[in-house]
Amino acid sequence: MRVTTSFPLGTLRDTPSEAEIISHQLLLRGGFIRRVNSGIYAYMPIMLRVIEKISSIIEKELNNNGCSKLLLPQLHPSELWKKSERWEGYTAGEGIMFNLKDRQGKEFGLAPTHEEVITSIASEIINSYKQLPLCFYQIQTKFRDEIRPRFGLMRSREFIMKDGYSFHSSKEDLSSFYGKMEKAYENIFKNCGLDTVGVDADSGSIGGAASKEFMVTADVGEDSILFTESGSYAANIEKAVSLPSDEIPLKKSKEVLFETPNQKSVIDVCQKNNLDASQIVKVVLFVAKFENKSEVPILTCIRGDQHINEVKLFNLINKKYNSNLIHLKILEDNAIIEKNLINFPLGYIGPDINDETIKNTSNWDKSWIRIADKSVSSLSSFVSGGNKINFHKVFQRFSFVEKNYLISDIRNAKKGDRISIESSEELKEKRGIEIGHIFQLGQKYSEKLNAKFSDKDGQLKSLWMGCYGIGVTRIAQAAIEQNHDENGISWPIQISPFEVLIIPTNLKDPNQKKLTEEIYKEFKSKKIDILLDDREDRAGVKFKDADLIGIPFQIIIGRDSINKEVEFLCRPSKSKIKIASKNLLEKFISESKVMYNKNS
Amino acid sequence: MRVTTSFPLGTLRDTPSEAEIISHQLLLRGGFIRRVNSGIYAYMPIMLRVIEKISSIIEKELNNNGCSKLLLPQLHPSELWKKSERWEGYTAGEGIMFNLKDRQGKEFGLAPTHEEVITSIASEIINSYKQLPLCFYQIQTKFRDEIRPRFGLMRSREFIMKDGYSFHSSKEDLSSFYGKMEKAYENIFKNCGLDTVGVDADSGSIGGAASKEFMVTADVGEDSILFTESGSYAANIEKAVSLPSDEIPLKKSKEVLFETPNQKSVIDVCQKNNLDASQIVKVVLFVAKFENKSEVPILTCIRGDQHINEVKLFNLINKKYNSNLIHLKILEDNAIIEKNLINFPLGYIGPDINDETIKNTSNWDKSWIRIADKSVSSLSSFVSGGNKINFHKVFQRFSFVEKNYLISDIRNAKKGDRISIESSEELKEKRGIEIGHIFQLGQKYSEKLNAKFSDKDGQLKSLWMGCYGIGVTRIAQAAIEQNHDENGISWPIQISPFEVLIIPTNLKDPNQKKLTEEIYKEFKSKKIDILLDDREDRAGVKFKDADLIGIPFQIIIGRDSINKEVEFLCRPSKSKIKIASKNLLEKFISESKVMYNKNS
Repeated sequence: MRVTTSFPLGTLRDTPSEAEIISHQLLLRGGFIRRVNSGIYAYMPIMLRVIEKISSIIEKELNNNGCSKLLLPQLHPSELWKKSERWEGYTAGEGIMFNLKDRQGKEFGLAPTHEEVITSIASEIINSYKQLPLCFYQIQTKFRDEIRPRFGLMRSREFIMKDGYSFHSSKEDLSSFYGKMEKAYENIFKNCGLDTVGVDADSGSIGGAASKEFMVTADVGEDSILFTESGSYAANIEKAVSLPSDEIPLKKSKEVLFETPNQKSVIDVCQKNNLDASQIVKVVLFVAKFENKSEVPILTCIRGDQHINEVKLFNLINKKYNSNLIHLKILEDNAIIEKNLINFPLGYIGPDINDETIKNTSNWDKSWIRIADKSVSSLSSFVSGGNKINFHKVFQRFSFVEKNYLISDIRNAKKGDRISIESSEELKEKRGIEIGHIFQLGQKYSEKLNAKFSDKDGQLKSLWMGCYGIGVTRIAQAAIEQNHDENGISWPIQISPFEVLIIPTNLKDPNQKKLTEEIYKEFKSKKIDILLDDREDRAGVKFKDADLIGIPFQIIIGRDSINKEVEFLCRPSKSKIKIASKNLLEKFISESKVMYNKNS
Repeated sequence: MRVTTSFPLGTLRDTPSEAEIISHQLLLRGGFIRRVNSGIYAYMPIMLRVIEKISSIIEKELNNNGCSKLLLPQLHPSELWKKSERWEGYTAGEGIMFNLKDRQGKEFGLAPTHEEVITSIASEIINSYKQLPLCFYQIQTKFRDEIRPRFGLMRSREFIMKDGYSFHSSKEDLSSFYGKMEKAYENIFKNCGLDTVGVDADSGSIGGAASKEFMVTADVGEDSILFTESGSYAANIEKAVSLPSDEIPLKKSKEVLFETPNQKSVIDVCQKNNLDASQIVKVVLFVAKFENKSEVPILTCIRGDQHINEVKLFNLINKKYNSNLIHLKILEDNAIIEKNLINFPLGYIGPDINDETIKNTSNWDKSWIRIADKSVSSLSSFVSGGNKINFHKVFQRFSFVEKNYLISDIRNAKKGDRISIESSEELKEKRGIEIGHIFQLGQKYSEKLNAKFSDKDGQLKSLWMGCYGIGVTRIAQAAIEQNHDENGISWPIQISPFEVLIIPTNLKDPNQKKLTEEIYKEFKSKKIDILLDDREDRAGVKFKDADLIGIPFQIIIGRDSINKEVEFLCRPSKSKIKIASKNLLEKFISESKVMYNKNS
């Protein structure tokens, strides 16, 4: 293509002030995207080529895996999301689904994900186990009304995703297909020229059993990954499991209340009373609000030197109850405490606080849901709140199990933790950008949407489901985060808008013009993805733009045209050679081959 | 692709009751689309292939025409649409734009069209005439909150469109580019294997100077096309211009009131008073409501045997005023008449009714906007209302011009009309499905959105714009309306989901199985678009499905496999031959070539 007649560039001289991270800045400066509103961008022609290359890498791999591409609607009727009990959670409060009413007053959501729609269609077209497994996928614009849109395409309100949904006749078949998809995902990211790491992940509001995220590691990533150097373990911090350091045993003493005036924090109590945080049991209170409008008070206990992982806690509570958990809030608002609790000494609560603290007039459930992290269940004695203002208490042989505590892992793993009793490996931490996520959903959606098939023995059973997402526009930006230098982007050749760029330095020179056209036509005839910067701008401007937009090879046509010589430049290595134009095509083919192989 | 492992079919036995027209029925029965909600459909894998083929035909032609593909957002901030003064018209009242508020309470519309967004981007990236012309296009899902969604993809609420926008430094350049796009459109539709007709069209709420629609003629079409047999003229009835038949001159008589008790209609007046409808001037009253909230009473006059064309009238009023016209309603509600008018004898109003009929307390403008169709301006004498209940009047030498009438064409052309004084050709009428529409927008949007460029002489000028739409999903359905028989669809080969379908009648027969695989692999190796129906169903079921889904060629593998013979069937002609498998590929190549050439 030619820049002047059919492929306008729109590079900027200055870095737009709105962009906080380098990949976002380069997308804007390179003219790849233009902001239309907060978190809403136009993909300019040069960006669309990147998106299409990523899309076709995904399509090729998924088609080989027996997946079928379709296209589902973006406007979803609320009825479907009410069947899966996700409407409230996705639209009310912190919900991220844009929603509207049509002219008849009917409610619709703008789809952030498609479990409901595809399960509903599957329920209509799948009758028999003979049709299974089936996997449908689409590549489509999705919507999320983000609380804080930022980082360009990393967290935008409109973005392109590949989402796929598989249907199976058994848990085993789902699990085996999930394994194949994991492999397909590794291939896709490799074929996009990306370095990624797969990590155990939380399955969040999507739900289900197993789930794995694929991360591009980068300092600006919004996710924290905990991993071992050996590669034996890697998980999102939301999901990671580890062992806390050993506690320092509390010296024997009587079970006794002691005064701790104004010592509301673990640090204060430790400092003033010569205690170690591992000797404290910290009590953290929450209120859980469910889709069916019920509200339940939650009492959690964790060792004083550890922290509650709210994602783990959320999932635990969500699984325990029939209704969907909409949100979980720390109890700290005095007005809410006074309305629902009697004589409640916040900051001095112990694990033995009784249910009578909940007022009869409260609309909360009338007993505390008690959850203790594993880190406290083994403590034989500890200090915790005395249930009296300005008092703490020494507890001896307190049994969390006997006091109706559910013992579970609700602790944040952190770097330095050991991964298991058997291993001495310690966790390390790095940041990652999530670009893919796969889930074993199980029968969650098929049960709620009544999607059944008849099994070999003629019995009707709920379908087993998996779901598989890739952030297409996010891949594009993550690739920049991983591949850039001080002059601009350096695209992996697989997803670069073009493979090679011709830069004639002065088209008024007839030799240059002639040689430029010859080379352009020769490359075009070999179906090479080539862009010709035929603008009349100064050479310096064109060189700057070339480095900024990051096409991996540049052919610079200058004064040596008269000798039929050009310069051939490799963007990532910055290496530049002078070469006779008759050898250029061959050189490009061999060099680009090396680059394709190196990246994938 | 194989039906069992990667390309599930989802044909239905019965015709869904919701589908009124054959193309909609066949899309549902063939498993091409599935309804998710009123006017909202999922495109199943077999449909997406059709959509992708149409899309790539469009892309190829537009890229050759120097257009650049991009992708614009679907969520549009209301600010942009307020700048173009289209927000109110598109969202309030009859407005068809779905709209919502985000979590910050900001208003957004779900885009039915993209003039605002692209003009705003153009204003940022275009500086100089040197960058012009430029044309951007996209292929994307659009939204319309239709009053009455129907006919499947013909009038749906989510649909796929190609929309393009061109930018020019002069009216002449716009006009010449528009001409090229007209030709490109003809090529696109021909390359899709469609019979289309281009007609003069109304430019509706998009606005602008010239506009042309491309129609697939079909009895179920929602548009009426008026045309001459010779092809010298074709226009949408909304826009068509013609000559009414000559009037029968009124016998000379004095200007006099005469009693016409209860004769409110033209027919009554004619019958009871021995008059011809062409001797009557019919007065039709409207109220126009503008974006700036003002309301204006409109008085129109037309010959009694003719009908007002409300589209022409709407456009005329819209152009005459600075504010956008939101809607135009016939004045017939007695409560509204009493509120705003004094002693107003509806049914007996004459063209000389005076402005004092409008009450001082009315919030309407205080004078009638008077508009007379050309059909009355030449009448030297006529009968019209007497401005008195139960009275009409003979008018002699009434001058519409002197009474401040704007004389214009606001008449519905109709079949049988002559097209001009010079020609004796008469208009004929047929129905059409609009699949494309091109517009010369002029400077309407660039002025409102302040999109300027600096001209050769350094002066800042507003960009000239064109806009170009194609209904991609509508093309798919229109193609079925034009190509089907009693057994199902018969796709034009260019947009068929596959070029050829292999139907083994019994895969348990090892000879059939072997030959099937050989042929499938041979065709695949030649990159032929082939589907293999490897289901274990009965042959009859597979034949029925094959005819229903309409792939143009079928290879039937049956008992003659043992002699390496198969049947080769052509879906449109229903011709079937027996052929040795070794000659099959060659036969397919030559036959498909004929079909490609015939259709395009």
